[in-house]
Amino acid sequence: MEKTIRILGIDPGLRRTGWGVIETLGNSLKFIASGTVTTDGQMDLASRLRQLHDGLTEVVHGYTPDESAVEQTFVNKDAVATLKLGQARGIALLVPSLAGLHVAEYAPNAVKKAVIGVGHGDKEQIHMMLKVLMPKVQFKGSDAADALAIAICHAHNRGANRMMKAALAG
Amino acid sequence: MEKTIRILGIDPGLRRTGWGVIETLGNSLKFIASGTVTTDGQMDLASRLRQLHDGLTEVVHGYTPDESAVEQTFVNKDAVATLKLGQARGIALLVPSLAGLHVAEYAPNAVKKAVIGVGHGDKEQIHMMLKVLMPKVQFKGSDAADALAIAICHAHNRGANRMMKAALAG
Repeated sequence: MEKTIRILGIDPGLRRTGWGVIETLGNSLKFIASGTVTTDGQMDLASRLRQLHDGLTEVVHGYTPDESAVEQTFVNKDAVATLKLGQARGIALLVPSLAGLHVAEYAPNAVKKAVIGVGHGDKEQIHMMLKVLMPKVQFKGSDAADALAIAICHAHNRGANRMMKAALAG
Repeated sequence: MEKTIRILGIDPGLRRTGWGVIETLGNSLKFIASGTVTTDGQMDLASRLRQLHDGLTEVVHGYTPDESAVEQTFVNKDAVATLKLGQARGIALLVPSLAGLHVAEYAPNAVKKAVIGVGHGDKEQIHMMLKVLMPKVQFKGSDAADALAIAICHAHNRGANRMMKAALAG
């Protein structure tokens, strides 16, 4: 018998990190919660990373997900921005891993494809499809919406990933 | 009366993160310990960041430093390498912060200047000066040596930093 799996999706950023929790059972998706962890730009970097760690730890302990997924970062030409994002992303990968969760990673176009059917599209399309896929969905802002989209992407791919691993393991 | 201050220096990297602990009292420096936390390149990124977190946490709990310092990252043109380093650096800043330590950051040329007197120089010069400054020093490899150099840089600058803060605070 299939089991309900609770998934945490995270869209990392130093200023704002979106998070979303859903449940999946077979092909069904259920919205559980979403939100944003913000850090104080007036504080030093180490303290901001601790704020991010503490906020995400609260989410992991509060919603006890079974699995988690983080968006792969779009590496752009702005090296300073890439470094900042990398530091925040390190915390986003660490926190679920400290709780013993596997952390899957998906490229931005894979996330879009899972939610709107194609690998490109704007934020409005993602917001609309989230409401179609999970009528009770609630989110404030694009970071939380993106995090829910990442969780949905993992719900669609986790079965295939498991079969692939089992096949490779012999 | 001046107090002995124990300083943890960290040179972050995803594969190898160097660390060094020294004590400073007035102008004197004393070597306490150094080492390297390595992560398993065969493991997924989240697990490697957890290895780094666990290794640095052990150092912080084992040597109970009073203050800490991390080298500012040299942002280069290779965005993928910058992102990797950023993720490791996020953990290096987080761990001392979680233990309630202030984490200072120093640019690579400031670290070199503190140890060899000028803002440029090769690894051999740093290794030699570490032995001059702390005759009992022990380190294996350049990552641990760089971490000790960062700790020394903080020992030289912390007084000035505190005076500056006090002056700015009125």
